[in-house]
Amino acid sequence: MSKQNVVLLAGGVGGAKLAEGLAALNKRVNLTVIGNVADDDEFHGLWVSPDIDTLTYSLADLIDRDKGWGLKEDPCNALSMLTSLGQDTWMNLGDKDFGLHIFRTLKRLKGERPQVIAAEIGRSLGVDATLVLPTDDVIQTRVKTAQGWISFQEYFVRERCQPTVLALEIAGIDKAQPTPESLAAIAEADVIVIAPSNPLVSINPILSVVGIREALQMRKVPAVAVSPFIGGKTVKGPADKMMQAMGFDPSGPGVATYYDGLIDALLIDSGDSQESEALEALGIMVGTADTLMQSLADKAQVAESVIDLAERCDFTLSPENLSSGERALA
Amino acid sequence: MSKQNVVLLAGGVGGAKLAEGLAALNKRVNLTVIGNVADDDEFHGLWVSPDIDTLTYSLADLIDRDKGWGLKEDPCNALSMLTSLGQDTWMNLGDKDFGLHIFRTLKRLKGERPQVIAAEIGRSLGVDATLVLPTDDVIQTRVKTAQGWISFQEYFVRERCQPTVLALEIAGIDKAQPTPESLAAIAEADVIVIAPSNPLVSINPILSVVGIREALQMRKVPAVAVSPFIGGKTVKGPADKMMQAMGFDPSGPGVATYYDGLIDALLIDSGDSQESEALEALGIMVGTADTLMQSLADKAQVAESVIDLAERCDFTLSPENLSSGERALA
Repeated sequence: MSKQNVVLLAGGVGGAKLAEGLAALNKRVNLTVIGNVADDDEFHGLWVSPDIDTLTYSLADLIDRDKGWGLKEDPCNALSMLTSLGQDTWMNLGDKDFGLHIFRTLKRLKGERPQVIAAEIGRSLGVDATLVLPTDDVIQTRVKTAQGWISFQEYFVRERCQPTVLALEIAGIDKAQPTPESLAAIAEADVIVIAPSNPLVSINPILSVVGIREALQMRKVPAVAVSPFIGGKTVKGPADKMMQAMGFDPSGPGVATYYDGLIDALLIDSGDSQESEALEALGIMVGTADTLMQSLADKAQVAESVIDLAERCDFTLSPENLSSGERALA
Repeated sequence: MSKQNVVLLAGGVGGAKLAEGLAALNKRVNLTVIGNVADDDEFHGLWVSPDIDTLTYSLADLIDRDKGWGLKEDPCNALSMLTSLGQDTWMNLGDKDFGLHIFRTLKRLKGERPQVIAAEIGRSLGVDATLVLPTDDVIQTRVKTAQGWISFQEYFVRERCQPTVLALEIAGIDKAQPTPESLAAIAEADVIVIAPSNPLVSINPILSVVGIREALQMRKVPAVAVSPFIGGKTVKGPADKMMQAMGFDPSGPGVATYYDGLIDALLIDSGDSQESEALEALGIMVGTADTLMQSLADKAQVAESVIDLAERCDFTLSPENLSSGERALA
């Protein structure tokens, strides 16, 4: 059996867990992960890419498993010096982590493409999967709260997701061009997977880079999402509150509605099987699994369920799945 | 008794020791240190200022006393990450140290004057002495070896001072302007002291900034140097080899010749008292002390000897010490 090219669209912690699960199926799966860069931000003059780093550290088995982000055994000496020097240091950055941000910033200043830098970091740290950025351009999620617009990290880390979200926007998205690597990965995919990441701030910024949503809409292979909600709640992060604030239900059907036209099947938690009927009514095939991923075995099990669900998709080239050129020929 | 304004011209490790000794005399002395910036260099995109940091860390009592440079209890996690990412990491940089370099680089990129940044760092870390840079411009000692021109840190750290020095130059010195703070400090000094630092690569770059050598030549207060040589050798570093390579004797008389016109007195090691006659023949008043500074008591003792020697200088306004305007009036 030849390996399947699996392309995973992923954010940070939840996305990294599924990425690890898919990476564990390396006898069946060639994994490419398209990560989110819209929560990138500059701290102390250095370019920090939290979701990409969480993916990289997880796939390199360097992640702090207790926190789910950051490197294990990584003290904060550099940050403590910056605190002594009067800097505002609410963003947690470990010492090895700083080494990576220093490297990334140096390479960016030298004009290297962020995509090339991310792939190089992955290779250097021993990641087998291919890490792909959706764009080399700077795009940044902005969160509108009662106090005004703030960056995603300000909302997420500094404000601990407490303010009510009034609106979201992605600064820079209008001018952002997709990387050739992201379009090529989608074009060569046998299966497309959307991770159980925050649909609004992790997945949407990837989809919003011109050409990526369109490539997924025109896909000729099955696309499966994993719901980030279990019993109407997220495992971590503000996706449930955010979905509600933006008028979507924090549930399987809410996810399927949000990803309308982009997925053929949804994997939901076994405890949410009552959602199946509503999902099928939306034309979405349903799979169930224990989607709370803690051990590597859990992650691999969810990944297996995703691949199995994709294989069960009766994905034939129905007219709406043909490109306009192919439709003209049909 | 009112305090004396003491201005110390200093390089790294040896200079920092005398700076600590003078700082310990804080009932008698207001200390201003003009430090060397010609061994500054960029590492991993960050601006590193080794001599200024050694002065700062020493005066803040944060220095690693065993090494004489760097911060105590400062592991190298960031550097190990940079090594993992394929960077050439021969320059030792600890984690807290990286925090400082990140801060300095950020402030420089924001357009703050290096002088203002250095003074702010000193204050933040609890340094009572005033830290002054001779120039805000970039000047860098270059060392010519058989392999060609290399930076001072390449010669000093990477090559461990092994190559024969064929020539020295200070890149950028022609365009470097003195800071107003350095000229003001010299103008307001009651005593000028030249530390037992490398005359060629620590002190000469300070003297070579236009206006500084001239200000010292026109001084109306005593200037005392401390010889960096004990028995013809340096305590640390390549000053002895370098002096010989440049045609100067690594001895008190060699130092006095090198500082011709800039000093009135020289403090030499007690073991080198046979140099007194030659020094007096050069018109230099001689003091002796145990100049090997290990404990803080040693440092304070050398500092006391320097101040005592300055007070013994019968420094009257002889014609050659008058400015041209004053000479016209005389």
